[in-house]
Amino acid sequence: MAKLGRVLDVGPDGPTARLVAVLPHEKLVVDLARAERLRLERRGASPSAALRMAQALFPGSMAQALALGEIFLEAVERVLAGPYADSALPIEGLHWLPPIDPPVMRDCLAFEEHLKNTLGRLGPIPDIYYQIPIYYKGNPTTLLGHEAEVPWPARCQEMDFELELGFVIGKGGKDLTPDQAKGCIFGITIFNDFSARDIQRQEMTGMLGPAKGKDFATAVGPWITTADEIDLLDLQMVARVNGEEWSRGHSGSIMWRPEELVAYISQDELLQPGELIGSGTVGLGCGLELGRFLKPGDVVELEVEGVGILRNRMGRPGQVIWQPPPRRTG
Amino acid sequence: MAKLGRVLDVGPDGPTARLVAVLPHEKLVVDLARAERLRLERRGASPSAALRMAQALFPGSMAQALALGEIFLEAVERVLAGPYADSALPIEGLHWLPPIDPPVMRDCLAFEEHLKNTLGRLGPIPDIYYQIPIYYKGNPTTLLGHEAEVPWPARCQEMDFELELGFVIGKGGKDLTPDQAKGCIFGITIFNDFSARDIQRQEMTGMLGPAKGKDFATAVGPWITTADEIDLLDLQMVARVNGEEWSRGHSGSIMWRPEELVAYISQDELLQPGELIGSGTVGLGCGLELGRFLKPGDVVELEVEGVGILRNRMGRPGQVIWQPPPRRTG
Repeated sequence: MAKLGRVLDVGPDGPTARLVAVLPHEKLVVDLARAERLRLERRGASPSAALRMAQALFPGSMAQALALGEIFLEAVERVLAGPYADSALPIEGLHWLPPIDPPVMRDCLAFEEHLKNTLGRLGPIPDIYYQIPIYYKGNPTTLLGHEAEVPWPARCQEMDFELELGFVIGKGGKDLTPDQAKGCIFGITIFNDFSARDIQRQEMTGMLGPAKGKDFATAVGPWITTADEIDLLDLQMVARVNGEEWSRGHSGSIMWRPEELVAYISQDELLQPGELIGSGTVGLGCGLELGRFLKPGDVVELEVEGVGILRNRMGRPGQVIWQPPPRRTG
Repeated sequence: MAKLGRVLDVGPDGPTARLVAVLPHEKLVVDLARAERLRLERRGASPSAALRMAQALFPGSMAQALALGEIFLEAVERVLAGPYADSALPIEGLHWLPPIDPPVMRDCLAFEEHLKNTLGRLGPIPDIYYQIPIYYKGNPTTLLGHEAEVPWPARCQEMDFELELGFVIGKGGKDLTPDQAKGCIFGITIFNDFSARDIQRQEMTGMLGPAKGKDFATAVGPWITTADEIDLLDLQMVARVNGEEWSRGHSGSIMWRPEELVAYISQDELLQPGELIGSGTVGLGCGLELGRFLKPGDVVELEVEGVGILRNRMGRPGQVIWQPPPRRTG
C-alpha cells in the first residue's frame, strides 16, 4: 500500500516530527499533514480548521497515527491518490527519525541458525527456545533513525550490529490466535540491534537478560513498508560494513512465523498499536557469529528487500563518568 | 511537598485521566487542572484561555507533567496554597489510575536478603549482583492502579506478589553521578511486581530475563509522595494478604542507594522524566521466600510508611486460547 516514515522539521516552534509517505522511485517524500491540510482547504475548510483535522489524522507520532486504524490508512490512500506536488520534498537531504515511536519494544530470537552460532557454541541450546518464542524488551526511547550516528558506550570493547526485521503493530489485541495476529502486523522496517557484546556477556550472568549491552542504541528505518507490499517470508537480508558485505540471509529461515511471534506476545498482555518487535538476528547476521567486531567510524548498512537500506555510522567511545563501587560479596 | 496521583473521570468525551493532589488527613483530593483553571479565571483569564493553560500545566499524563520540571512543582504549590474548596473531591469512591505512566519501566533487585532467599537457594549468587545494580525492563502499558483487579494469566499456577518501592524520575539526564541522580528522584510510590513464578522460572532458562512471568500486571500507587517528604532509607514496608501480615521489611536494608540505581540506569541511556524504577523486593517481601502463593480472589495490601496502602484483588485465571506448537529440537 505504502512506505511510511518520519522526518524532522525545524520551524519557529522548534523541531517537530512529520509523517511522510515515501516514493523511492520518484525520489520524493510527501508530507502527509501538509497534503491533507491543502486537500481540506480545496474542499472548502478554513485554513485553521483544515490544519486541526490534518494534525489529528497525521500527528508527529506514528504510534498515535496507527491507533486510528483504518481511518489512518484511508487518509494515506486519499493523499497518495493526489494531487500532492505542493507537499512533496526530495528524498535526499532529509533528517530521518525512527519511523515508529513504540510504546513497547521487544526483540525475539527467532532464527535458529543465529541461536546455534551463539548460545549453541557455549553448550546445548536451552530447550525453551523450541517451546515458545521468547524475547527480551528493549528501551524504546533510545531508538535511532537512518543516518543517525550511533553512540558508543564508554565501557564497550566489542561492538556489534544485528541484522533483523522489525515488525510494526497496527491493530492491538490480547490473547490473539496467529490468524488474528496476522492482521495486526501493519508492516516491517529494518532493525539494527547494536550490541556491546562484552557488557552484554557480563550482565547476562545475572539471569535478568540484556540491558546496558543493548539499550544504548537500536537503529530502525529508513521507513516502514506495509505488509501487503511484501511476502514477509521471502526477503533477502544483507549487511555491509564500510561497503564490504559481511552477512547475507533470508527471512524465510525464521523458526517462528511473524504471526506466531505476535500471537505469543499478545498472551496475557494487551498488544498496542505502534509496538515494535524485532525478529532476532538472521543466521550469520552479526559480527559475533563471524568473529569480527565494529570500530569507531565504521559505517553499517543493513538492506532488506522491499524496504531499503538503513545506514548508520558508529560514533567514538564516551568517557566513564562514574562506576558503581562493588558491594561486599554475600 | 505533596502527594500526587491520577484518577479517572468519565465525561461526555469518554474516560479521561485527571491529576490530583492527595490530602489523606483531610480525606480529600484536589483536581489540579480544575483548581488552576478557576484560579486563572479569578485572575481575569477568559474561561477558554484558563482551560487551555490549566490543561497544559496539568495534563492527564503524569510523565508529561513531570517533564515541565520546576514549572509543574511551582504550579502544584500555588494550587495547594488555596483556595481549592471548589476543586476538592472526597478521597473515597475514586477510580484510581497508576499515578505514573512511565515511558520506560525497570525493576532492580537491590535487596540482598531477597537475593539470598531466592537465587541463593538454587546455588551461589552470581557475583554480578555485587558488581553492578542489574535490572530487567517491564511492560509499562500493563500497569494497574490502586483497587484494580489483577488479571490472572491462564497458564499460571504459582501466583506471587512482590513488596517494592517505586522510584519516580522527575528530571532526566545521561551519565549522572549519584549526587546528580539524587536530584532526579521526584518521589516514591508503592510497587507490586505480581509474578507468575512457574512461567517466570520456565522462560528464564532462555537467559533473556523475565517477560510473561511478570508483564501481565504490575500495580503501583495509590499515589506518589515527593522525595522531600520522606527519608527513602527509613521506611517500614508491610505486605498483608486477606488482612494477615505476610511480610515486614525496611527500606534501609537496600544494598544500592536509590541514587546509585538511578546513576547506573542513566549510563549510556538518556533517563526521561516520568520513568519508573522498582527497587526490587525487600527481604521476605514475597510468597516465594515464604513458601506460600496467592489464590484467585485474594486481597493483597502493600503498605509503605509515608505513602499509604496499595490494595489489589486477584482475578480468576483466564482461558488458554492458543499455545505455540513446539519446534523440533535443534
